[in-house]
Amino acid sequence: MLVTPITELLGIKYPVFQGGMAWISDGKLAAAVSNGGGLGIIASGNAPASYVRDEIRKAKSLTDKPFGVNIMLLSPYADEIADVVAEEKVAVVTTGAGNPQKYMKMWKEAGIKVIPVVASTAIAKLMERMGASAVIAEGGESGGHIGELTTMVLVPLIVSSVSIPVIAAGGIATGEQGAAAFMLGAVGIQMGTRFLSADECSISEVYKEKILKASDRCTMVTGKRLGHPVRSLKSPFSRSYEKAEYSSISDDELEALAVGALRKAVVDGDNENGCFLAGQVAALVNKSESAASIVKSIAEDTEKCLKGASKWIR
Amino acid sequence: MLVTPITELLGIKYPVFQGGMAWISDGKLAAAVSNGGGLGIIASGNAPASYVRDEIRKAKSLTDKPFGVNIMLLSPYADEIADVVAEEKVAVVTTGAGNPQKYMKMWKEAGIKVIPVVASTAIAKLMERMGASAVIAEGGESGGHIGELTTMVLVPLIVSSVSIPVIAAGGIATGEQGAAAFMLGAVGIQMGTRFLSADECSISEVYKEKILKASDRCTMVTGKRLGHPVRSLKSPFSRSYEKAEYSSISDDELEALAVGALRKAVVDGDNENGCFLAGQVAALVNKSESAASIVKSIAEDTEKCLKGASKWIR
Repeated sequence: MLVTPITELLGIKYPVFQGGMAWISDGKLAAAVSNGGGLGIIASGNAPASYVRDEIRKAKSLTDKPFGVNIMLLSPYADEIADVVAEEKVAVVTTGAGNPQKYMKMWKEAGIKVIPVVASTAIAKLMERMGASAVIAEGGESGGHIGELTTMVLVPLIVSSVSIPVIAAGGIATGEQGAAAFMLGAVGIQMGTRFLSADECSISEVYKEKILKASDRCTMVTGKRLGHPVRSLKSPFSRSYEKAEYSSISDDELEALAVGALRKAVVDGDNENGCFLAGQVAALVNKSESAASIVKSIAEDTEKCLKGASKWIR
Repeated sequence: MLVTPITELLGIKYPVFQGGMAWISDGKLAAAVSNGGGLGIIASGNAPASYVRDEIRKAKSLTDKPFGVNIMLLSPYADEIADVVAEEKVAVVTTGAGNPQKYMKMWKEAGIKVIPVVASTAIAKLMERMGASAVIAEGGESGGHIGELTTMVLVPLIVSSVSIPVIAAGGIATGEQGAAAFMLGAVGIQMGTRFLSADECSISEVYKEKILKASDRCTMVTGKRLGHPVRSLKSPFSRSYEKAEYSSISDDELEALAVGALRKAVVDGDNENGCFLAGQVAALVNKSESAASIVKSIAEDTEKCLKGASKWIR
């Protein structure tokens, strides 16, 4: 068994988080991951507070294990959602795209462990000072909104910058990658893309098939011109968006191009107009299985790889 | 000691390659690395064949250990350089930016081990079929010309695609990162950026200082518009080049902007107009030391990390 500061802090069996993915990570998926011994996380994305409350209650009806909520701090509903998670006393809140400082006191009083996603040492240090229980260091090979540094470089930099536990995210879908994350100093891993293949993940069949069939050079990054790079599967939408970035189109028009594209992927399975977010590891995700099976196998495979680490030492 | 298929194949003490860096990796640096027990590599870049022959002979005068030559296959002098390495019977040739197929027979007859740098599974498989002795899987966090996939994702994909040894490159400057590379299935590591800090590395003092002082978000990628992304330190040159990429400037004008920028960094130390190539790990390179000390310490630190891999297993 992998027993680390993060399994002990949260009282979970395996040091495996399911990343909060907007439009995707609902109460059903989060509960399935938590029931499997990992930490399931409901994503709030840009959804209203009522959606988040409903999903929290759904998760509570499906599991008595701890689970989390990811709050995208740029959401217009961030303030309301911050109240909801405190009222519902969820075990963990992860945050992205901003600074959760103004909510920290309320959350800590509600007994919530706050674990921000960070992409630089400066933000990691700030979060530790503000009382974060741990941080998630997410490398730029991950899906969705991405930072500059890759997991190989970001994780050791963050580990050497803070004394709270560091969870590695980005580029992790196999035991080899899990073990690599541990060698970089992480004490837990977070996966998004691999959970897209979970039986309990309610994405369109088109989306799921694309993940299972993805080959090595399957993703691309768009959005750099507007300063918000996003990684997704190569698709008609992402290719035409990239072309528009290098055209004379205005920033407002460019922004408008992306509206609704995520819903079209997740809900409609619209191959032409959908934006199918995925990390580079989609190439390594080849089968559907239950969320519990994913959690157990990644933890066991990681442990097995770590046990074999002395293979070349004479 | 780390004894792996690559140390045994090449008869080197440590599974540590010094990456071929155009304008930088000369006979002096390569010999110092090889004398230290790693594999030093002379970079041909766009230099004429006479330069490469001179540097090979210089290295031979400084070491009796095996060393290599990196051939950038897009070089106008590639054919001549291919002949030179065969005539000089260097131990190893690494190749980049193209397909070395037409030289393979000549090189193998000269007893040369050919180890191409690869950034996709398709190319790795092709190289194995063509008789490559090993491949270097270089992730996009590295400096200079880069591929799409990061080390965390590329290395395991390549390892599962070929049965020859895989050396990991990109994002490696510490023992933690070396150990991570081994967990990903690599049996050797290649470093470029860390060797920029070597006493025997003849880059301008300005360049060396920039590497030693680099912080976590120190690099950027330019060149995507022309399809040849390059990672370098953020600098006046790289920022203005990036602006030009999103302007209405023609592709030819854009290409002309970069001419001479590498020499201005390496030779002149020109802070304004130089292009200072570096990998993301520049943030983790903080001291100058001898090439031999770098080779020994990365190998020993990697071994130490691998020995501690079971730390969290109960």
